[in-house]
Amino acid sequence: MKKERVAIIGAGPSGMAQLRAFEAARDAGAEVPEVVSFEKQADWGGQWNFSWRTGLDEYGEPVHSSMYRNLWSNGPKEALEFADYTFDEHFGRPISSYPPRPVLWDYIAGRLAKTDVRSKIRFQTIVRWVEFDEDAETFTLTSEHLPTGETRVETFDRIVVASGHFSFPNVPDFPGVETFTGSIRHAHDFRGAEALKGRDVLVIGSSYSAEDIGSQAFKMGARSVTASYRTAPMGYDWPEGFEERPTIERFDGDVVHFVDGTSKRVDAVILCTGYLHKYPFLPEDLSLSSPNNVYPAGLYGGVIWQKNPRLAYLGAQDQWFTFNMFDVQAWFVRDLILGRIELPDEAEREASITDWLARFDAIETAADEIRFQADYVRDLGQQTDYPAFDIDRVVEIFLAWKADKKKDIMGYRDRVYPSVMTGTLAAEHHTPWIDELDDSLERYLAEDPDETQERSAA
Amino acid sequence: MKKERVAIIGAGPSGMAQLRAFEAARDAGAEVPEVVSFEKQADWGGQWNFSWRTGLDEYGEPVHSSMYRNLWSNGPKEALEFADYTFDEHFGRPISSYPPRPVLWDYIAGRLAKTDVRSKIRFQTIVRWVEFDEDAETFTLTSEHLPTGETRVETFDRIVVASGHFSFPNVPDFPGVETFTGSIRHAHDFRGAEALKGRDVLVIGSSYSAEDIGSQAFKMGARSVTASYRTAPMGYDWPEGFEERPTIERFDGDVVHFVDGTSKRVDAVILCTGYLHKYPFLPEDLSLSSPNNVYPAGLYGGVIWQKNPRLAYLGAQDQWFTFNMFDVQAWFVRDLILGRIELPDEAEREASITDWLARFDAIETAADEIRFQADYVRDLGQQTDYPAFDIDRVVEIFLAWKADKKKDIMGYRDRVYPSVMTGTLAAEHHTPWIDELDDSLERYLAEDPDETQERSAA
Repeated sequence: MKKERVAIIGAGPSGMAQLRAFEAARDAGAEVPEVVSFEKQADWGGQWNFSWRTGLDEYGEPVHSSMYRNLWSNGPKEALEFADYTFDEHFGRPISSYPPRPVLWDYIAGRLAKTDVRSKIRFQTIVRWVEFDEDAETFTLTSEHLPTGETRVETFDRIVVASGHFSFPNVPDFPGVETFTGSIRHAHDFRGAEALKGRDVLVIGSSYSAEDIGSQAFKMGARSVTASYRTAPMGYDWPEGFEERPTIERFDGDVVHFVDGTSKRVDAVILCTGYLHKYPFLPEDLSLSSPNNVYPAGLYGGVIWQKNPRLAYLGAQDQWFTFNMFDVQAWFVRDLILGRIELPDEAEREASITDWLARFDAIETAADEIRFQADYVRDLGQQTDYPAFDIDRVVEIFLAWKADKKKDIMGYRDRVYPSVMTGTLAAEHHTPWIDELDDSLERYLAEDPDETQERSAA
Repeated sequence: MKKERVAIIGAGPSGMAQLRAFEAARDAGAEVPEVVSFEKQADWGGQWNFSWRTGLDEYGEPVHSSMYRNLWSNGPKEALEFADYTFDEHFGRPISSYPPRPVLWDYIAGRLAKTDVRSKIRFQTIVRWVEFDEDAETFTLTSEHLPTGETRVETFDRIVVASGHFSFPNVPDFPGVETFTGSIRHAHDFRGAEALKGRDVLVIGSSYSAEDIGSQAFKMGARSVTASYRTAPMGYDWPEGFEERPTIERFDGDVVHFVDGTSKRVDAVILCTGYLHKYPFLPEDLSLSSPNNVYPAGLYGGVIWQKNPRLAYLGAQDQWFTFNMFDVQAWFVRDLILGRIELPDEAEREASITDWLARFDAIETAADEIRFQADYVRDLGQQTDYPAFDIDRVVEIFLAWKADKKKDIMGYRDRVYPSVMTGTLAAEHHTPWIDELDDSLERYLAEDPDETQERSAA
């Protein structure tokens, strides 16, 4: 019988997890389908593949990554560690709990570096359009190799959408915003806060982007940072010069008016207003449409498209758990494709979705949401051979992390945690986050940081 | 016999010209095909439909317009005037030769406002994918209504691509650019120069964007403006504080090093590096690929896709002539569709393309290029009933305009020309371009500008 063909759209953390899942089965002697991975960028890593570009890339395609030069993990690495490839294994020594971007990129790339999965990835190749043929039960996928413009039409038995949902900015309109004369961009197009030194900065939003970009602006010497919230303030114990205000009533030139009647002149605005679920290559009936939450409707097991189970989505949830959640999802999808797990019929799937949605609707606190996602990860994981790990311990780390932030929003990244996988206690980093201006891998791993600082300053 | 169906992709100046062309024939009693216009934006006008947004729009689609708040026409309106709808007819009185954006938008919209062509436009609807069925000789066009996500698949007999080629930025890489800590964006994402006051600004390029954005930065009080050219400087008599330097060797933080060994610290970089021909909704064999020039290869009559004459492109040329060239192209395409002009066979079309390419290759000066395009416009125009106008006179206006710029790059917009269509001499504007900070239609048309200035300042 002819080998099934599986298309994986996107080679970021979730797409790489799917490649790894099939690779692991193949290593163990299993017959695996033909896998083709489509990646728009020139390298793997998705969000973690930094680009200086904003808006549209060198081929006129939307830039995927929302990453900025100075980003450090905003959650402890102990909560996202792979169960089958630990930080100890990759770095050979303890590192801190909140590594900068290049360190995490190095880690996720390192897991696949020794395999041949890279050969399955078509880089700089964008998926233009996907159609499902009801009779043949196959997908027709049209892709374009961006450097040559070559269009290719192929048939696949399964599609795994792993293109992420933090790449297409959600950009609301604001009264008078067209009159704003300062710099205005969405967090997706933010690449670093150095130019905000001495400026009055407004971040609009109250989630991770506003928290982290506002903190970056403060760290880089902004004259003032104002965060505008819609429903509730972030409520951290912000340092002098960092304040929260309610939602915006209107812009007037370089002055912003808030609904509490106050106003402020600002030089730069960063819209930290979230992202869209957007799949421009999918017709309406295959396209996930949901707010950003931990149980988007229409996905059995949080991954299988209920209307057409030959289509799967990875990482479509809002995320407390990240890399290791993508792993259990990828292992689960792999085992459904390999027939190791039987797909329930439509009614059973619907019942399961309904159960989970009921639990989802009962969520009241962030802690509830973390435990909900922990149960979800446990439920999928135990159906596969993905290495078991202490998920309750990860929940404890998340809760401790939240407490650390409450205590010291500018200092929480200096805290350390033990690995859930190996027990290794993270190393205290050589430089506090607030003082570190060199976010490179070399600097981070340096035995003698002062020496590298001179080098990188030279 | 069943009516032909024609899809027009884009409702900017060229798509609006195509709608107008069919409307004019229908008014004159002709049987016209069913026309459907697809427009991604919420209103017509294409480039002239200003948006404060950059990068991706509210639906995650690439923002179309490269327009900025303060743009004034950089060529005399007398060179772009419609032969069938004059500035006199629209404004009822003489206006200046270089109107600001809203005035030109008002003019092109005005021509269609009294017709019912707007009803043929599906706004906020993007064309996702087009395929040609060789047997049926029809196109299958898949579109998406952005607000609802509704996907629609339809059949058309003809496609007119009028989506423009100044919307997808050409963004080259530069050594070390990822270390640049200032503000960097392509001209496509430039929305105004007010924030450049007191800053050191670098524009990269030597064409219209560099010339005009550099001039805007100077007008708005930039501390310095540096323009970096690749092949030759613009060579205008720039004012104090505006200089040209050769191409960039590398970026290092906020310092730019040029190939002549000089360097400069800059706050902001605007990449005036041109645009891409990009048609993401078309497969390779239907997709125009060309540098930006006055005779892109593969188009008979500069409009008909040689490989498939049921497909046409409007305004695909680099442009001296604009609105009235789009008109003659639209009238020509209309008359081919209506059968008023017989389409030559493939060999004849190829011979014609070859002739024009030979003349194109002989172009040496800008004046040659202007005359080449004048001959092209004349050639198409005389095959249709588009009102004849004195094209040689337009050439003289272009040459005088170039001389004016050479004389006074910051003052040329204060010059006036007589209309080729009506003979009316343009009005001297109430305020020199360099002193005018209010670019609104109200201000422009005000009898008593001082009074509106107070109003708009209030």
